[in-house]
Amino acid sequence: MERTWTTELPQRCGERVLLKGWLHRLRRLSGVSFLVLRDARGLAQVVVDDPQLVTSLSRLHQESVLEVEGTVLAEAQAPAGVEVRQPTVSVIAAAAAAPPVDLFRPTLRAQLPTLLDHAPVTLRHPRLRARFLVASATMAGFRQALRGAGFVEIQTPKIVGSATEGGANVFSLDYFGRRAFLAQSPQLYKQTMVGVFERVFEVGPAFRAEPHDTPRHLNEYVSLDAELGFVRDHRDVMATLRDAVAGMVEGVRDEAAGALDLLGARLPEVPEIIPSLHFPEALSLLSEATGEDLSGEPDLAPAHESWLGEWARREHSSDFLFVTGYPMVKRPFYTHPDPPSPSYSNSFDLLFRGQELATGGQRLHRYEDYLAALESRGLPVAPFAGYLEAFRHGMPPHGGFAIGLERWTARVVGVANIREATLFPRDLSRLSP
Amino acid sequence: MERTWTTELPQRCGERVLLKGWLHRLRRLSGVSFLVLRDARGLAQVVVDDPQLVTSLSRLHQESVLEVEGTVLAEAQAPAGVEVRQPTVSVIAAAAAAPPVDLFRPTLRAQLPTLLDHAPVTLRHPRLRARFLVASATMAGFRQALRGAGFVEIQTPKIVGSATEGGANVFSLDYFGRRAFLAQSPQLYKQTMVGVFERVFEVGPAFRAEPHDTPRHLNEYVSLDAELGFVRDHRDVMATLRDAVAGMVEGVRDEAAGALDLLGARLPEVPEIIPSLHFPEALSLLSEATGEDLSGEPDLAPAHESWLGEWARREHSSDFLFVTGYPMVKRPFYTHPDPPSPSYSNSFDLLFRGQELATGGQRLHRYEDYLAALESRGLPVAPFAGYLEAFRHGMPPHGGFAIGLERWTARVVGVANIREATLFPRDLSRLSP
Repeated sequence: MERTWTTELPQRCGERVLLKGWLHRLRRLSGVSFLVLRDARGLAQVVVDDPQLVTSLSRLHQESVLEVEGTVLAEAQAPAGVEVRQPTVSVIAAAAAAPPVDLFRPTLRAQLPTLLDHAPVTLRHPRLRARFLVASATMAGFRQALRGAGFVEIQTPKIVGSATEGGANVFSLDYFGRRAFLAQSPQLYKQTMVGVFERVFEVGPAFRAEPHDTPRHLNEYVSLDAELGFVRDHRDVMATLRDAVAGMVEGVRDEAAGALDLLGARLPEVPEIIPSLHFPEALSLLSEATGEDLSGEPDLAPAHESWLGEWARREHSSDFLFVTGYPMVKRPFYTHPDPPSPSYSNSFDLLFRGQELATGGQRLHRYEDYLAALESRGLPVAPFAGYLEAFRHGMPPHGGFAIGLERWTARVVGVANIREATLFPRDLSRLSP
Repeated sequence: MERTWTTELPQRCGERVLLKGWLHRLRRLSGVSFLVLRDARGLAQVVVDDPQLVTSLSRLHQESVLEVEGTVLAEAQAPAGVEVRQPTVSVIAAAAAAPPVDLFRPTLRAQLPTLLDHAPVTLRHPRLRARFLVASATMAGFRQALRGAGFVEIQTPKIVGSATEGGANVFSLDYFGRRAFLAQSPQLYKQTMVGVFERVFEVGPAFRAEPHDTPRHLNEYVSLDAELGFVRDHRDVMATLRDAVAGMVEGVRDEAAGALDLLGARLPEVPEIIPSLHFPEALSLLSEATGEDLSGEPDLAPAHESWLGEWARREHSSDFLFVTGYPMVKRPFYTHPDPPSPSYSNSFDLLFRGQELATGGQRLHRYEDYLAALESRGLPVAPFAGYLEAFRHGMPPHGGFAIGLERWTARVVGVANIREATLFPRDLSRLSP
């Protein structure tokens, strides 16, 4: 018999079906018992009235793997309006012990460290699992939006020969007796690939050896990167980022609607034109509202971003806000200045519900500008040899952005700590599972 | 004026268009000169009859970035049947030097080390670039096939706490004062995620510290991984792999047909049922054909695979061949034995044009089988704690496979060395660019 998914049962009333899944729960009542079977898509209620079967099921630990053959019947009282009756049950794999937390509860009560320590099992909980269906659909939507706009997918190396983007916050490793590093981002590679494909994207891991222990930092995360050539300036990049985020929303709506429902999560609307504040404007608004003296501040603090997020919702009914023109002093060497006021940059952050989701901007594209930028920052030229070669041989005006997948997922599904939106987070103390 | 791509010119005859791209070549003839402009999609021939413009263009290095406005005219003698006339040219970014190799030649003549040393520029060559359009389309097709079959995309950590899959061939790094390692594959994670999603896939980097210097090994490569639960045995996994490869072919056909044409590459047909040989059968065929005594051999040498590839083509008109049932002694500890003859495994390799493309099989799924397998191999239990927890709490029969992206691309586009199918290869000596 072909397998039936639990979610297909409402369409199979009156039929005999074969279900496969995990013993999510056995509820023993006085007259009748209920076996709740979980598969990758949902739960099924199986009515067990054979006392012998009840006894043998009660000897199994939860999470044992079962096959259940039974007849589907409409039953208004049952969770999805259907239940399975006259079951025969085979045990595919008996669990060797009770699960480390009660997976059958609608909401898990365990603390985050417990959930993370036992992730291979706790992720089976429908609500935890649902977050990663959102993440999966997000990646699909991101790629589809960019492929539709002519972007080529690239895969660039994660082991690199020089710690080009900032010496301190990089993991180093032994590479056949030489020192190598883990890429902090595909930044330099994706830029050079604009010279080849004009429009590129990459979805892959990025590594930061930052000794931060906050709810919004990971030491390994998934970066959704894009870069495009022949832009006027950062505004073309912002338009592409807007479309990529709209694609992510569409991906989640198309593929993970059930997961959103289960989580009670609300997808954002992405405005055709995302509202935007120039950095000094943002500071003025903040100063006005809070009374803080922010003149000369080169960056926004998390509390500022949060306030601006509320402002965008209030003033523009938008979950998104661009802040543009961050001072050059806080941006990396490849950042393009704003030509009329070169202490400001053609860069931006995209805030989503009051938190930084993406960073991007226009980059320098002239060889001589790179040489000058490195020199003025006291950076050596040699480690950048391969990168600079691209600019030496003709590069168009270009720019790009990077979105943190886990930050996005955390905001969409409504969890406070980014670790809850990561299958197996890596942080200061956590290297396993 | 909106930009026109070079490949759109045949549809724009008689119109004034704006092209953007790189100065691919300037051909100065006695009466007239031709500027060949390259963009991400192709080449355009621009007729320059203004001597002043010829002079100013001749002062530019190749690879300078230009905008060209001109009128499109049909011209039977021109490469794509069209050329651009009455051009006005603006220089967007002048190249600072001549390119390290002659990019305008239809086929690059430089040696591989030169091409790799200057990859940020040499990849711009249409024939080199085309390989990576094939790789990009391959990834899209792989994902589409698996998503269509209900697979969920996962991203698992690349920094791991223990060198679980083989101690010697692993890169180690300093992780905030602790020793960590780069994941050799997502194997253990994707298996545990079968307990969550039943069907998962991942496209990401894998790291092998093997000190091999061959045309078919990289120290960092892109692995296309999948794993699925509730299988009968490895044959269900093979069917899924067949569909994934068919998806890859379809992806390339849909998205990279032009690249294939340019390279004169031939896409394989994927048979509905890929022919398959049991390992001992394969050895018999090889012994018969070559006269070698292969009895007791636990694995196939590259020359054997090559011979079997020819056999599959001759006997089954297939570019693909499964070899199943490799002896357990050469397979990793999680491999499921063949129940009736347990010295053989329920594992397989997929050969593509006589070279290993993918490896996979059914895995153990019972907790006690894992404990026994580790013990019999003298492996400690502690480093596998997180992994084993999944099996302790109920896992269905499952299996999966991993495809090497670069091997696939190399075979499809017809390059001998896997480095030619990698944007920025990492090998014993190469850490940059």
